[in-house]
This record gives sequence, C-alpha cells and structure tokens, in this order.
Amino acid sequence: MKTDLSREYQTLKQDFDDLKLQNLSLNMARGKPGKEQLELSMPLLDVLNSGSDCLAADGTDCRNYGGLEGIIDARKLFSEYLEVSPEEIMITGSSSLIFMYDTISRAMLTGVLGSKKPWSHYNRPKFICPVPGYDRHFSICEFLGIEMLPVTMDDNGPNMELVEELVKNDETIKGIWCVPKYSNPSGITYSDETVRRLAAMETKAEDFRIFWDQAYAYHFLDPNTDTVLLNLLEACKKAGHPNRAYLFASTNKITFPGAGVAFFAASEENIAYAKKQLSMQAISWDKLNMLRHVRFFKNMSGIHKHMCKHATLLKPRFYIVMRSLEKELLPLGLGTYTKPQGGYFITYMAPHGCAKRIVALCKEVGITLTDAGATYPYGNDPDDSCIRIAPSFPSCKELETAMNVFCKMVRLAAVEKQLKE
Amino acid sequence: MKTDLSREYQTLKQDFDDLKLQNLSLNMARGKPGKEQLELSMPLLDVLNSGSDCLAADGTDCRNYGGLEGIIDARKLFSEYLEVSPEEIMITGSSSLIFMYDTISRAMLTGVLGSKKPWSHYNRPKFICPVPGYDRHFSICEFLGIEMLPVTMDDNGPNMELVEELVKNDETIKGIWCVPKYSNPSGITYSDETVRRLAAMETKAEDFRIFWDQAYAYHFLDPNTDTVLLNLLEACKKAGHPNRAYLFASTNKITFPGAGVAFFAASEENIAYAKKQLSMQAISWDKLNMLRHVRFFKNMSGIHKHMCKHATLLKPRFYIVMRSLEKELLPLGLGTYTKPQGGYFITYMAPHGCAKRIVALCKEVGITLTDAGATYPYGNDPDDSCIRIAPSFPSCKELETAMNVFCKMVRLAAVEKQLKE
Repeated sequence: MKTDLSREYQTLKQDFDDLKLQNLSLNMARGKPGKEQLELSMPLLDVLNSGSDCLAADGTDCRNYGGLEGIIDARKLFSEYLEVSPEEIMITGSSSLIFMYDTISRAMLTGVLGSKKPWSHYNRPKFICPVPGYDRHFSICEFLGIEMLPVTMDDNGPNMELVEELVKNDETIKGIWCVPKYSNPSGITYSDETVRRLAAMETKAEDFRIFWDQAYAYHFLDPNTDTVLLNLLEACKKAGHPNRAYLFASTNKITFPGAGVAFFAASEENIAYAKKQLSMQAISWDKLNMLRHVRFFKNMSGIHKHMCKHATLLKPRFYIVMRSLEKELLPLGLGTYTKPQGGYFITYMAPHGCAKRIVALCKEVGITLTDAGATYPYGNDPDDSCIRIAPSFPSCKELETAMNVFCKMVRLAAVEKQLKE
Repeated sequence: MKTDLSREYQTLKQDFDDLKLQNLSLNMARGKPGKEQLELSMPLLDVLNSGSDCLAADGTDCRNYGGLEGIIDARKLFSEYLEVSPEEIMITGSSSLIFMYDTISRAMLTGVLGSKKPWSHYNRPKFICPVPGYDRHFSICEFLGIEMLPVTMDDNGPNMELVEELVKNDETIKGIWCVPKYSNPSGITYSDETVRRLAAMETKAEDFRIFWDQAYAYHFLDPNTDTVLLNLLEACKKAGHPNRAYLFASTNKITFPGAGVAFFAASEENIAYAKKQLSMQAISWDKLNMLRHVRFFKNMSGIHKHMCKHATLLKPRFYIVMRSLEKELLPLGLGTYTKPQGGYFITYMAPHGCAKRIVALCKEVGITLTDAGATYPYGNDPDDSCIRIAPSFPSCKELETAMNVFCKMVRLAAVEKQLKE
C-alpha cells in the first residue's frame, strides 16, 4: 500500500517538475470579468457624446453639481433591480465596496440611525461573518478593529440557530455580512426561511444592520435556472424591523469593473439619515455615468438581455471547472464542491489540511489562486480545506489547462499528506 | 440728519417692496460653473467610444479592475498639474471633497503615518481653520467632532504668528485647512513666506498635516495676471517635514462637476501608506474617466488652453460684481472687498452686524446667497460681516440684475442699522 502511494507520489512529483518548466501563467484568483465580457458593454461608451443633451428625466443637468441621491432615472431603474421603491435607493459612486466601507466607517465614527453611541465607542464591536465569505468584507472589519465571529454556512445560508443565539445576547454585535445570492464564494442562495429568520430575529443591539451585498443579483449562469432570493427589505418591514436591512449592489460585473455605478437601498428613514450624513462629505457623484448606464439599458429587460450574454460566456467556464472536479477528483474521494447556478466562483473543499499546500503547489507551477484561508476571518480556515476558484478571467482553453494542473496538484498534496500519516 | 436717513429708508423700503413683486429667482450661492463653461468640455464625451482601445500607456485595460493608484497616464499629467512626481500622486475617484473627508475619517479611525494613536482617541482633536474659509471643510470637522480654531487671514494668508503659536504648544492640533490659491472665499493667494512658514513651523503633534486644497490651481481670470503659489510639498521637504503636506485637487471645475477626476498628492511615504490603507476599502476607481480626461487634454498645455476659455467666461462676471461694489457701495463707505485674480468667489465685507440681514433681505426678493456666517466654523462670523458672492452660474445679464438688487439691500440693511443706533 505504502509502495503504491510512493509510486503515485513519484509520478505526480514528476508531473510537477515537468510543469514547472512550462512557465505557465494563469490566474483563477479574482472574480474579474474576461475580455469578451468587457466587449459586451462597449456600446455604453457611445451613449453620451458631444451632441447629447445630458439631462435627466426631471431636467437635471448631469454635467453639473447637485443631486446627492443620484438622478431619478437611475434611482428608478436600479430600484427595480433591487426590488425597492425609488425613495428607498441612492446611487453612490462607482463601487459598492467603497460605499460599504464608508457606511461602516461612518457607523464607527457616529453610529447609524437609532445608535446610542458610535460603534467605535464599544470596547469591541463585532460582526457575524458567515464562512466561507468575501475576503474584502473581512478586511474592512479587520482594518476598522471590528471583531469577526465566523458562522458556518450550508446550502440554505448561515447556520441560523447560531446567528440567532449570538445576536440575542450581545449588544456589541452590530452587523452581519451576507452575499445572499450566488454567494461569494460558495455560490449558494439563501433560502426563504433564512431570509425571514434574519429579518425577524431578536437582536440585543437596537442598531443591528444586515449588510446585504447583492453583488450577483442577476448573475445567473442560465436564466432558466436562476434562483429566487426573498426580498430582505420587505421581510424586515413585515417583521417590524424596517431599518435593519442595508442593500448594496453595483453594475461593476454588468458593465465595467471600477467604472460602473453603485447603489445603496434601505428604508426611507435610513436613506434620509444617510443622505443627511453624506451631505457632509460629498456634493454629488458622477451623474453622467448614471445617465450613460440608464440610456444604455433603458429598463430591466435591457439588463436581463445583457446578463444573458454574460451567462453565455460564463457558463462554459463554470462547466470546465465542474467537469474537471467531477472527473478527476470526486471519483478518488478527494474533496467536494457546491454546484453554483450563478455568481463568479466555485468553492472546492479539499481534503482537510491540504488547501494551503495545494495553493502553494499551484503557485509554483504558475497557477494563481486566491490565498487559502482568505475566505475566512483573519485568514483562518480551521480545516485548511476551502479553495475559491474564479473561472471568469481566463479563456476556456487556458481554463482547461489550469484545471488540469489544479487537479494534479490536489492529488499531489493529498498523497504527500497520506505519506506523512 | 435723522430725517435724511428716514427719507432714504423710505425710498429703499419702497424699492424692496417693488422688488418683491418682480418674482426674481437668481442664485449667487455656490461655486457652480455656468452652462457655457460646461459646453467647453462636451468634446470630452467623444474621446472614448465603442471603437476605442481603452488601454493605458502601460497596457492596463481601463475597463477592468485594478490599479488602485490610478493609471500611469493620469498620474503623469496630474503630477505636472500639482508640480509633484508621478510617484507622489494617486488618482482617487471623482471628487476631492469626498477624498478629503475620507482621509480625515481614516485618520480619526486609525491615524496617519507616524500617529501614536487614532485622532479620535484624543479627548478633542483640533484643526486650525483660516477664516473666512470653505464651509464644506468646516462641515467635515463638525460632523467628525473635530474642534475648529479660527485664525484670521489677510492678503498673504492666515495670521502665521498665531498659527505657529497654536501648533507649537498643542499636541491635539492635528491639521490646518488651506485653500492656498485663489482662496475660497477671499480670492487671495498665500505668499511665499506663508508657505515657507507653514512648512517649517514647529508642531507639537508629530502627525500634523496641512490639508492643501488646490481647488483653483489653474483657475485664473487672466493668464497674464495668474499668481504663483510656492510648492508646498517641496517647501516641506526642504524644511525636513516631507510628510506634512497633503495636496488635493480635481478637474471638477475644469471639465464636469461631479464627473471629473480627483487626485491626492503627498510624499512617496505618505502615498505608500495611503495606498495600503485604501486597499482595505477599494479595488480601483473609474479608470475609463481617467483615460477620457488624459486623452482630452493630452498635456499641461491642453489644460492651460482649456482654462483660458473658462477665464474668458468668468472674467466679465467677476467684473460685473466688482464694478457694482465699487460704483454703488464703496463710495458710500459701505464695506470692502478683496479683488481676486482667480477662483470662484468675491468676498464682500459688509458693515459690521449687517451680513445676516443683507442675506435675508436678498432672499426675500429672490436673490440666493451663501448663508451669512457659512464661511466661519460653526457658522459664527463674529463681525457678522462676510458675504461670499459666487458669480459663475448666472448669465451676465442676470448677474447685473442680481448685483443691482444686492447693492440696494446692503444700503437698506445699513440704513436700518443706523436708524436703530
């Protein structure tokens, strides 16, 4: 048995050495749209030109100062996108991440609507972090000194019994990070029951907020198998907690990453409060880019059609990854994964204790993956198992190569581990 | 004598009543570019279209994520604009105000390079505020709980003896707000000596910062009478305080307000520190808009030519205001003003105790001015004298009308005051 293992190790080690000589350079690390996806939005750049009127529907000149809440045309379109009313949304710059950070930083310095004091005045304010989750959410907390409490997820979302227990008893728990649809990185969508329980649960903190990052709201792989997420703001209203929900989204993975428009939705009372605070730090955001986006899409049907084109490009890439895992690793009992219906990631759960080694081996042969552990607070994956695979950026051909190598590295790491045991 | 005054009051009061019936609606409140100024930048919207390559000089695809510091092309152009090196600048979104707020909010939460602790951990951190100054700078401080210490200005800038005395003895004084060129609102430019003393002065706080808001760096009324501002970053380096200078600027009053590009310049060490912090809150800003701007201007000469066109539109407006003050009020001994060579404002210093009344009277007859007191911390102008006039937005004809009314209201307020005495 040990001899068989040694022989397998020799073969895989030989493959590894050969691969090193190939000078591969392939990247599956970040949820970055590929070139063909960017091409889909090139007509956006023709929408406004020197002959354009640049007027919003209410006559606002989008070329000048004013309109902190964003132009009415954009609020109408993106309120439909998030299933809220135009009074429950603000358009806020080009990045939802920047706005999420800003929202928490303001809460730390001054509190949110209903706060007894700024969050930073608590000895150690805390956030619940469903795991695995989005590394940049966790960086914001770490940077601002917010303690993170990891809670595991299953196919329905975070373990709600644990979440309910935590928030019921601790006033210093001020929020929870959620990527509720096509979650980053597992790809799952929160069940209706999860959403209802999040909206209804009793929280010791009166100023508790759900940070609902709708980064992938329309990012299905196939419109026919799109999953349906319950409307959190509605659920919170029904449960008597209208101010609990903070919804964030952007067009960064619809049009151009970095050059899209971002938006923030919440109860009218929350929006009024945010607007008052934001008037201290901003005059207005880029209304020309808002107008460009609205005139490009026209309506939700325009966004839907556009997202179908993205899906056509993304679906084969997801299939390459999934087929590879299913063909090369699962039959050997090596790891598991959740089959996503949308989003930007596939999460592969490697044999325990192997994730760091797999990522390191891949790096040595020129395949860049998200750091193992990055999807956990403080980079701490207790099982050293979770690997986030981002298939959007490489071409299909590159992805085939990358996954071929990836599977070999998983096998090598697994054999190494067995040999040590 | 009293009878003469009464008669004058009756005449002016009658004018006031007549004016109220005219339903005027004219705005001289904000430094908002006029329609003709916006037209100057319309070709900016043609620069990028669906046939464009969208590549920065180093091959960066401006349509995708990445490049937190901004594209090299924009860093090169705007480093020339601020007379720093491309390593000493970051391009940071569409608004310098938003970035100034963010910079202070980060300092409050985590400190700046060299801080012993976050600024919010001091009992009451303080900023020096030269007065009159920019109301939005003061709102940021008030919002974040930073105490403001007003220091008067003359034609050379703030009273440096007082500034030096304050910062030498108080570790909690962490910064000073400056609009050093064509100051908001007085229009003066800091003298070389003022800049050198700011750079050289001894500060008790090791983490003291000069917030140098270069909003009007190239905003002359006439290129031949453009004033020269000493380079603060250079002066700070020479004085052995390279990390003291934070420079902010944007193209909001060059191209489109709200849809321009903003930038931040400082020592390489400060930039590296900021970049590390910002990587926690942002992936990148709108690189397409950076590229659009760089390709539109090409170089500093392009910016200079563009600013000359703005000057052609602004100069007559400034002259209408100044001529009106000189003809109607100064001969009567009513108030003073500083003649600006650029910027967006004329500051009229009304007879003491009259500013609030003048602004209120103007409002009643349909002329909107910046609130009296707004140019002082906490809205407190101790002399109730300073009125900021913003001539850019109205047409020349509207401005003639507005100034005609304004002068009458000044006279009415002055007579009212005399009658009470």
